[in-house]
Amino acid sequence: MALYIKSVENLIREFRKLPGIGPKSAKRIVFFLLKLSHDDIVKFSKSLVEMKEKVKVCKSCFGLTEEEICNICKDQTRDRKKICIVEEVSDVMIIEKTGEYRGLYHILGGLLSPIENIGPAEIKVPRLLERIKTEGIEEVIIALNPTVEGESTAMYLKKVIIPLGVKITRLASGLPVGGDLEYADEITIGRAISDRREL
Amino acid sequence: MALYIKSVENLIREFRKLPGIGPKSAKRIVFFLLKLSHDDIVKFSKSLVEMKEKVKVCKSCFGLTEEEICNICKDQTRDRKKICIVEEVSDVMIIEKTGEYRGLYHILGGLLSPIENIGPAEIKVPRLLERIKTEGIEEVIIALNPTVEGESTAMYLKKVIIPLGVKITRLASGLPVGGDLEYADEITIGRAISDRREL
Repeated sequence: MALYIKSVENLIREFRKLPGIGPKSAKRIVFFLLKLSHDDIVKFSKSLVEMKEKVKVCKSCFGLTEEEICNICKDQTRDRKKICIVEEVSDVMIIEKTGEYRGLYHILGGLLSPIENIGPAEIKVPRLLERIKTEGIEEVIIALNPTVEGESTAMYLKKVIIPLGVKITRLASGLPVGGDLEYADEITIGRAISDRREL
Repeated sequence: MALYIKSVENLIREFRKLPGIGPKSAKRIVFFLLKLSHDDIVKFSKSLVEMKEKVKVCKSCFGLTEEEICNICKDQTRDRKKICIVEEVSDVMIIEKTGEYRGLYHILGGLLSPIENIGPAEIKVPRLLERIKTEGIEEVIIALNPTVEGESTAMYLKKVIIPLGVKITRLASGLPVGGDLEYADEITIGRAISDRREL
Protein backbone atom coordinates (compact mmCIF):
# COMPACT_ATOMS: atom_id res chain seq x y z
CA MET A 1 0.00 0.00 0.00
CA ALA A 2 1.57 3.19 -1.15
CA LEU A 3 -1.17 5.63 -0.22
CA TYR A 4 -0.87 5.26 3.55
CA ILE A 5 -4.53 5.95 4.20
CA LYS A 6 -5.18 4.09 7.39
CA SER A 7 -8.88 3.37 6.95
CA VAL A 8 -8.34 2.10 3.39
CA GLU A 9 -5.44 -0.10 4.45
CA ASN A 10 -7.48 -1.51 7.33
CA LEU A 11 -10.32 -2.48 5.05
CA ILE A 12 -7.99 -4.07 2.49
CA ARG A 13 -6.51 -6.09 5.36
CA GLU A 14 -9.98 -7.24 6.43
CA PHE A 15 -10.87 -8.40 2.91
CA ARG A 16 -7.57 -10.25 2.55
CA LYS A 17 -8.61 -12.48 5.45
CA LEU A 18 -11.53 -13.85 3.43
CA PRO A 19 -11.12 -17.12 1.54
CA GLY A 20 -10.17 -16.72 -2.12
CA ILE A 21 -9.35 -13.00 -1.83
CA GLY A 22 -5.75 -12.10 -2.67
CA PRO A 23 -4.07 -8.68 -2.44
CA LYS A 24 -5.19 -7.52 -5.90
CA SER A 25 -8.80 -8.63 -5.40
CA ALA A 26 -8.91 -6.97 -1.98
CA LYS A 27 -7.71 -3.67 -3.43
CA ARG A 28 -10.15 -3.90 -6.32
CA ILE A 29 -13.04 -4.54 -3.93
CA VAL A 30 -12.06 -1.65 -1.65
CA PHE A 31 -11.80 0.80 -4.55
CA PHE A 32 -15.18 -0.43 -5.74
CA LEU A 33 -16.62 0.17 -2.26
CA LEU A 34 -15.15 3.68 -2.18
CA LYS A 35 -17.39 4.55 -5.10
CA LEU A 36 -20.58 3.28 -3.46
CA SER A 37 -22.90 5.60 -1.58
CA HIS A 38 -22.74 5.93 2.19
CA ASP A 39 -26.14 4.22 2.42
CA ASP A 40 -24.97 1.20 0.44
CA ILE A 41 -21.94 0.80 2.69
CA VAL A 42 -24.05 1.07 5.82
CA LYS A 43 -26.43 -1.54 4.39
CA PHE A 44 -23.52 -3.88 3.69
CA SER A 45 -22.05 -3.30 7.10
CA LYS A 46 -25.40 -3.92 8.80
CA SER A 47 -25.98 -7.16 6.88
CA LEU A 48 -22.70 -8.43 8.27
CA VAL A 49 -23.51 -7.78 11.91
CA GLU A 50 -27.16 -8.76 11.48
CA MET A 51 -26.21 -12.14 10.09
CA LYS A 52 -23.85 -12.76 12.98
CA GLU A 53 -26.45 -11.69 15.54
CA LYS A 54 -29.47 -13.44 14.06
CA VAL A 55 -28.08 -16.77 12.92
CA LYS A 56 -28.12 -19.51 15.52
CA VAL A 57 -27.42 -23.20 15.48
CA CYS A 58 -30.48 -25.44 15.16
CA LYS A 59 -31.00 -27.38 18.40
CA SER A 60 -31.92 -30.50 16.50
CA CYS A 61 -29.58 -30.86 13.50
CA PHE A 62 -26.91 -28.19 14.22
CA GLY A 63 -27.76 -26.47 10.95
CA LEU A 64 -28.33 -22.73 10.72
CA THR A 65 -31.52 -20.95 11.68
CA GLU A 66 -32.79 -17.63 12.97
CA GLU A 67 -35.12 -19.51 15.36
CA GLU A 68 -34.66 -22.45 17.75
CA ILE A 69 -35.27 -25.17 15.17
CA CYS A 70 -34.37 -24.81 11.48
CA ASN A 71 -36.81 -24.84 8.56
CA ILE A 72 -35.74 -28.29 7.42
CA CYS A 73 -36.23 -29.89 10.85
CA LYS A 74 -39.61 -28.19 11.20
CA ASP A 75 -40.85 -29.24 7.75
CA GLN A 76 -43.45 -31.99 8.30
CA THR A 77 -43.71 -32.73 4.57
CA ARG A 78 -40.16 -34.11 4.52
CA ASP A 79 -39.22 -37.77 4.88
CA ARG A 80 -38.53 -37.83 8.62
CA LYS A 81 -37.25 -41.41 8.61
CA LYS A 82 -34.06 -40.51 6.73
CA ILE A 83 -31.17 -38.53 8.11
CA CYS A 84 -28.24 -37.33 6.05
CA ILE A 85 -24.93 -36.72 7.82
CA VAL A 86 -22.81 -33.89 6.46
CA GLU A 87 -19.71 -32.09 7.62
CA GLU A 88 -20.75 -28.47 7.06
CA VAL A 89 -23.91 -26.42 6.66
CA SER A 90 -22.75 -25.50 3.16
CA ASP A 91 -23.03 -29.20 2.26
CA VAL A 92 -26.74 -29.07 3.17
CA MET A 93 -27.22 -26.26 0.67
CA ILE A 94 -25.43 -28.22 -2.03
CA ILE A 95 -27.53 -31.36 -1.45
CA GLU A 96 -30.78 -29.41 -1.20
CA LYS A 97 -30.04 -27.82 -4.56
CA THR A 98 -29.99 -31.23 -6.29
CA GLY A 99 -33.64 -31.86 -5.29
CA GLU A 100 -32.80 -35.59 -4.90
CA TYR A 101 -33.15 -35.72 -1.14
CA ARG A 102 -36.15 -34.87 1.03
CA GLY A 103 -35.10 -36.24 4.41
CA LEU A 104 -33.52 -34.62 7.46
CA TYR A 105 -29.88 -33.67 8.13
CA HIS A 106 -27.32 -33.84 10.88
CA ILE A 107 -24.39 -31.45 10.65
CA LEU A 108 -21.21 -32.66 12.33
CA GLY A 109 -19.42 -29.33 12.03
CA GLY A 110 -16.13 -31.17 11.49
CA LEU A 111 -14.53 -34.58 11.10
CA LEU A 112 -12.79 -36.85 13.58
CA SER A 113 -9.17 -35.86 14.02
CA PRO A 114 -7.12 -37.33 16.86
CA ILE A 115 -4.27 -34.90 16.07
CA GLU A 116 -6.51 -31.87 16.53
CA ASN A 117 -8.24 -33.45 19.53
CA ILE A 118 -11.58 -33.69 17.73
CA GLY A 119 -13.42 -36.70 19.08
CA PRO A 120 -17.01 -38.00 18.69
CA ALA A 121 -18.44 -35.50 21.20
CA GLU A 122 -16.97 -32.53 19.30
CA ILE A 123 -18.70 -33.65 16.09
CA LYS A 124 -22.09 -34.16 17.78
CA VAL A 125 -22.15 -37.97 17.59
CA PRO A 126 -23.96 -38.43 20.96
CA ARG A 127 -26.83 -36.21 19.76
CA LEU A 128 -26.88 -38.09 16.43
CA LEU A 129 -27.27 -41.45 18.16
CA GLU A 130 -29.99 -39.99 20.38
CA ARG A 131 -31.85 -38.71 17.33
CA ILE A 132 -31.61 -42.07 15.56
CA LYS A 133 -33.03 -43.81 18.66
CA THR A 134 -35.80 -41.36 19.50
CA GLU A 135 -36.96 -40.02 16.14
CA GLY A 136 -37.72 -43.33 14.45
CA ILE A 137 -34.94 -42.97 11.88
CA GLU A 138 -34.81 -45.87 9.40
CA GLU A 139 -31.92 -44.82 7.19
CA VAL A 140 -28.72 -42.90 7.84
CA ILE A 141 -27.04 -41.51 4.73
CA ILE A 142 -23.42 -40.55 5.16
CA ALA A 143 -22.52 -37.66 2.85
CA LEU A 144 -19.03 -36.78 3.99
CA ASN A 145 -16.28 -35.71 1.62
CA PRO A 146 -14.34 -38.69 0.17
CA THR A 147 -11.10 -37.63 1.87
CA VAL A 148 -9.05 -39.57 4.43
CA GLU A 149 -10.72 -37.81 7.36
CA GLY A 150 -14.15 -38.16 5.76
CA GLU A 151 -13.70 -41.88 5.18
CA SER A 152 -12.40 -42.58 8.67
CA THR A 153 -15.22 -40.58 10.24
CA ALA A 154 -17.67 -42.58 8.08
CA MET A 155 -16.13 -45.83 9.30
CA TYR A 156 -16.44 -44.71 12.91
CA LEU A 157 -20.06 -43.67 12.42
CA LYS A 158 -20.86 -47.05 10.81
CA LYS A 159 -19.40 -48.82 13.84
CA VAL A 160 -21.51 -46.89 16.35
CA ILE A 161 -24.72 -46.79 14.28
CA ILE A 162 -24.87 -50.48 13.27
CA PRO A 163 -25.90 -51.63 16.79
CA LEU A 164 -28.99 -49.39 16.48
CA GLY A 165 -30.29 -51.59 13.65
CA VAL A 166 -30.85 -48.88 11.05
CA LYS A 167 -29.83 -48.97 7.40
CA ILE A 168 -26.58 -47.08 6.71
CA THR A 169 -25.74 -45.86 3.25
CA ARG A 170 -23.20 -43.49 1.83
CA LEU A 171 -23.07 -41.34 -1.32
CA ALA A 172 -22.19 -43.34 -4.42
CA SER A 173 -18.81 -42.90 -5.96
CA GLY A 174 -18.84 -40.32 -8.67
CA LEU A 175 -17.22 -37.73 -6.50
CA PRO A 176 -13.49 -37.75 -7.26
CA VAL A 177 -11.51 -39.17 -4.31
CA GLY A 178 -9.63 -36.45 -2.46
CA GLY A 179 -12.10 -33.88 -3.82
CA ASP A 180 -14.57 -31.59 -2.12
CA LEU A 181 -18.39 -31.57 -2.25
CA GLU A 182 -18.29 -27.85 -2.80
CA TYR A 183 -16.75 -28.14 -6.27
CA ALA A 184 -18.85 -30.99 -7.70
CA ASP A 185 -21.72 -30.16 -10.05
CA GLU A 186 -25.33 -30.69 -9.04
CA ILE A 187 -26.01 -33.58 -11.43
CA THR A 188 -23.05 -35.55 -10.12
CA ILE A 189 -24.08 -34.97 -6.52
CA GLY A 190 -27.70 -35.78 -7.36
CA ARG A 191 -26.66 -39.07 -8.96
CA ALA A 192 -24.43 -39.85 -6.02
CA ILE A 193 -27.48 -39.44 -3.76
CA SER A 194 -29.78 -41.72 -5.77
CA ASP A 195 -26.98 -44.31 -6.18
CA ARG A 196 -25.99 -44.30 -2.51
CA ARG A 197 -24.74 -47.71 -1.37
CA GLU A 198 -24.92 -49.65 1.88
CA LEU A 199 -21.89 -49.36 4.17
CA MET B 1 -30.19 -20.67 -1.63
CA ALA B 2 -31.90 -23.63 -0.14
CA LEU B 3 -31.70 -22.72 3.52
CA TYR B 4 -34.02 -19.70 3.41
CA ILE B 5 -32.26 -17.91 6.23
CA LYS B 6 -32.93 -14.29 5.46
CA SER B 7 -29.87 -12.74 7.09
CA VAL B 8 -27.53 -15.24 5.39
CA GLU B 9 -29.15 -14.73 2.01
CA ASN B 10 -28.91 -10.95 2.40
CA LEU B 11 -25.22 -11.10 3.12
CA ILE B 12 -24.54 -13.45 0.21
CA ARG B 13 -26.39 -10.98 -2.00
CA GLU B 14 -24.19 -8.12 -0.71
CA PHE B 15 -20.98 -10.02 -1.44
CA ARG B 16 -22.16 -10.95 -4.93
CA LYS B 17 -22.27 -7.25 -5.79
CA LEU B 18 -18.50 -6.99 -5.33
CA PRO B 19 -16.19 -7.25 -8.36
CA GLY B 20 -14.82 -10.74 -8.98
CA ILE B 21 -17.15 -12.46 -6.49
CA GLY B 22 -19.45 -15.07 -8.00
CA PRO B 23 -22.20 -17.09 -6.29
CA LYS B 24 -19.86 -19.85 -5.02
CA SER B 25 -17.27 -17.42 -3.69
CA ALA B 26 -19.97 -15.37 -1.98
CA LYS B 27 -21.34 -18.45 -0.21
CA ARG B 28 -17.88 -19.57 0.77
CA ILE B 29 -17.08 -16.16 2.24
CA VAL B 30 -20.35 -16.00 4.17
CA PHE B 31 -19.87 -19.47 5.68
CA PHE B 32 -16.36 -18.43 6.61
CA LEU B 33 -17.73 -15.30 8.30
CA LEU B 34 -20.30 -17.36 10.20
CA LYS B 35 -17.42 -19.08 11.96
CA LEU B 36 -15.73 -15.86 13.03
CA SER B 37 -16.31 -14.34 16.44
CA HIS B 38 -18.83 -11.58 16.96
CA ASP B 39 -15.95 -9.18 17.69
CA ASP B 40 -14.23 -9.98 14.40
CA ILE B 41 -17.43 -9.34 12.49
CA VAL B 42 -18.03 -6.05 14.27
CA LYS B 43 -14.44 -5.04 13.50
CA PHE B 44 -14.93 -5.86 9.81
CA SER B 45 -18.24 -4.04 9.72
CA LYS B 46 -16.74 -0.97 11.41
CA SER B 47 -13.79 -0.86 9.00
CA LEU B 48 -16.27 -0.65 6.16
CA VAL B 49 -18.20 2.31 7.52
CA GLU B 50 -15.08 3.98 8.89
CA MET B 51 -13.40 3.89 5.51
CA LYS B 52 -16.45 5.44 3.89
CA GLU B 53 -16.72 8.13 6.53
CA LYS B 54 -13.04 9.03 6.82
CA VAL B 55 -11.85 8.91 3.24
CA LYS B 56 -12.22 12.17 1.34
CA VAL B 57 -11.05 13.41 -2.02
CA CYS B 58 -7.84 15.44 -1.97
CA LYS B 59 -8.63 19.06 -2.87
CA SER B 60 -5.50 19.32 -4.96
CA CYS B 61 -5.08 16.09 -6.96
CA PHE B 62 -8.46 14.32 -6.39
CA GLY B 63 -6.67 11.36 -4.84
CA LEU B 64 -7.76 9.85 -1.54
CA THR B 65 -7.00 11.23 1.88
CA GLU B 66 -8.36 11.39 5.40
CA GLU B 67 -7.45 15.09 5.54
CA GLU B 68 -7.93 18.03 3.16
CA ILE B 69 -4.77 17.42 1.14
CA CYS B 70 -3.30 13.97 0.53
CA ASN B 71 0.10 12.75 1.69
CA ILE B 72 1.59 12.86 -1.79
CA CYS B 73 0.52 16.47 -2.43
CA LYS B 74 1.83 17.50 1.01
CA ASP B 75 5.20 15.77 0.58
CA GLN B 76 7.78 18.52 0.04
CA THR B 77 10.53 16.00 -0.76
CA ARG B 78 8.78 15.00 -3.99
CA ASP B 79 9.55 16.48 -7.41
CA ARG B 80 6.84 19.14 -7.51
CA LYS B 81 7.58 20.14 -11.12
CA LYS B 82 6.21 16.88 -12.53
CA ILE B 83 2.57 15.86 -12.57
CA CYS B 84 1.36 12.41 -13.61
CA ILE B 85 -2.18 12.12 -14.95
CA VAL B 86 -4.00 8.88 -14.15
CA GLU B 87 -7.54 7.66 -14.49
CA GLU B 88 -8.09 6.13 -11.05
CA VAL B 89 -6.64 6.28 -7.55
CA SER B 90 -5.69 2.62 -7.87
CA ASP B 91 -3.34 3.64 -10.72
CA VAL B 92 -1.49 5.91 -8.28
CA MET B 93 -0.87 2.92 -6.02
CA ILE B 94 0.43 0.87 -8.93
CA ILE B 95 2.82 3.60 -10.07
CA GLU B 96 4.00 4.36 -6.53
CA LYS B 97 4.86 0.70 -6.05
CA THR B 98 7.34 0.78 -8.96
CA GLY B 99 9.43 3.42 -7.15
CA GLU B 100 10.26 4.99 -10.56
CA TYR B 101 8.27 8.17 -10.07
CA ARG B 102 8.60 10.83 -7.38
CA GLY B 103 6.43 13.62 -8.76
CA LEU B 104 2.82 14.65 -8.13
CA TYR B 105 -0.40 13.19 -9.51
CA HIS B 106 -3.69 14.34 -10.93
CA ILE B 107 -6.54 11.84 -10.84
CA LEU B 108 -9.14 12.30 -13.57
CA GLY B 109 -11.61 9.83 -12.06
CA GLY B 110 -12.68 8.77 -15.55
CA LEU B 111 -12.02 9.22 -19.26
CA LEU B 112 -13.68 11.41 -21.86
CA SER B 113 -16.79 9.74 -23.23
CA PRO B 114 -19.23 11.74 -25.36
CA ILE B 115 -21.71 8.82 -25.25
CA GLU B 116 -21.83 8.85 -21.46
CA ASN B 117 -21.80 12.66 -21.36
CA ILE B 118 -18.38 12.78 -19.70
CA GLY B 119 -16.66 15.96 -20.84
CA PRO B 120 -13.49 17.78 -19.72
CA ALA B 121 -15.15 19.30 -16.63
CA GLU B 122 -16.25 15.87 -15.37
CA ILE B 123 -12.67 14.58 -15.49
CA LYS B 124 -11.21 17.61 -13.70
CA VAL B 125 -9.41 19.13 -16.68
CA PRO B 126 -10.07 22.77 -15.63
CA ARG B 127 -8.38 22.12 -12.25
CA LEU B 128 -5.51 20.34 -14.01
CA LEU B 129 -4.86 23.33 -16.27
CA GLU B 130 -5.04 25.65 -13.26
CA ARG B 131 -2.49 23.49 -11.41
CA ILE B 132 -0.12 23.46 -14.38
CA LYS B 133 -0.31 27.25 -14.60
CA THR B 134 -0.03 28.09 -10.90
CA GLU B 135 2.20 25.36 -9.47
CA GLY B 136 5.17 25.81 -11.79
CA ILE B 137 4.76 22.39 -13.43
CA GLU B 138 7.44 21.63 -16.03
CA GLU B 139 6.39 18.17 -17.20
CA VAL B 140 3.03 16.46 -17.54
CA ILE B 141 3.19 12.66 -17.75
CA ILE B 142 0.09 11.02 -19.15
CA ALA B 143 -0.35 7.55 -17.64
CA LEU B 144 -3.75 6.55 -18.97
CA ASN B 145 -4.61 3.01 -20.04
CA PRO B 146 -3.71 2.33 -23.69
CA THR B 147 -7.35 1.80 -24.68
CA VAL B 148 -9.43 3.75 -27.20
CA GLU B 149 -10.87 6.02 -24.49
CA GLY B 150 -7.48 6.40 -22.83
CA GLU B 151 -5.80 7.36 -26.12
CA SER B 152 -8.47 9.86 -27.11
CA THR B 153 -8.41 11.46 -23.65
CA ALA B 154 -4.62 11.70 -23.96
CA MET B 155 -4.97 13.38 -27.35
CA TYR B 156 -7.43 15.88 -25.91
CA LEU B 157 -5.15 16.61 -22.95
CA LYS B 158 -2.21 17.15 -25.28
CA LYS B 159 -4.24 19.68 -27.27
CA VAL B 160 -5.19 21.76 -24.22
CA ILE B 161 -1.85 21.46 -22.39
CA ILE B 162 0.47 22.34 -25.33
CA PRO B 163 -0.48 26.07 -25.25
CA LEU B 164 0.78 26.22 -21.66
CA GLY B 165 4.32 25.50 -22.88
CA VAL B 166 5.11 22.50 -20.65
CA LYS B 167 6.67 19.22 -21.71
CA ILE B 168 4.13 16.46 -22.26
CA THR B 169 5.12 12.81 -22.12
CA ARG B 170 3.28 9.55 -21.94
CA LEU B 171 4.14 6.08 -20.65
CA ALA B 172 6.30 4.13 -23.07
CA SER B 173 4.84 1.25 -24.95
CA GLY B 174 5.36 -2.00 -23.12
CA LEU B 175 1.81 -2.12 -21.86
CA PRO B 176 -0.16 -4.33 -24.25
CA VAL B 177 -2.61 -2.24 -26.27
CA GLY B 178 -6.19 -2.75 -25.12
CA GLY B 179 -4.90 -3.88 -21.71
CA ASP B 180 -5.31 -2.47 -18.23
CA LEU B 181 -2.70 -0.91 -15.89
CA GLU B 182 -4.10 -3.00 -13.07
CA TYR B 183 -2.90 -6.29 -14.57
CA ALA B 184 0.59 -5.28 -15.68
CA ASP B 185 3.56 -6.25 -13.53
CA GLU B 186 5.62 -3.67 -11.64
CA ILE B 187 8.77 -4.02 -13.77
CA THR B 188 6.85 -3.42 -17.00
CA ILE B 189 5.13 -0.36 -15.55
CA GLY B 190 8.42 0.87 -14.07
CA ARG B 191 10.14 0.58 -17.45
CA ALA B 192 7.22 2.28 -19.13
CA ILE B 193 7.69 5.22 -16.74
CA SER B 194 11.43 5.61 -17.33
CA ASP B 195 10.95 5.20 -21.12
CA ARG B 196 8.06 7.66 -21.35
CA ARG B 197 8.07 9.50 -24.67
CA GLU B 198 7.06 12.98 -25.77
CA LEU B 199 3.54 13.35 -27.15
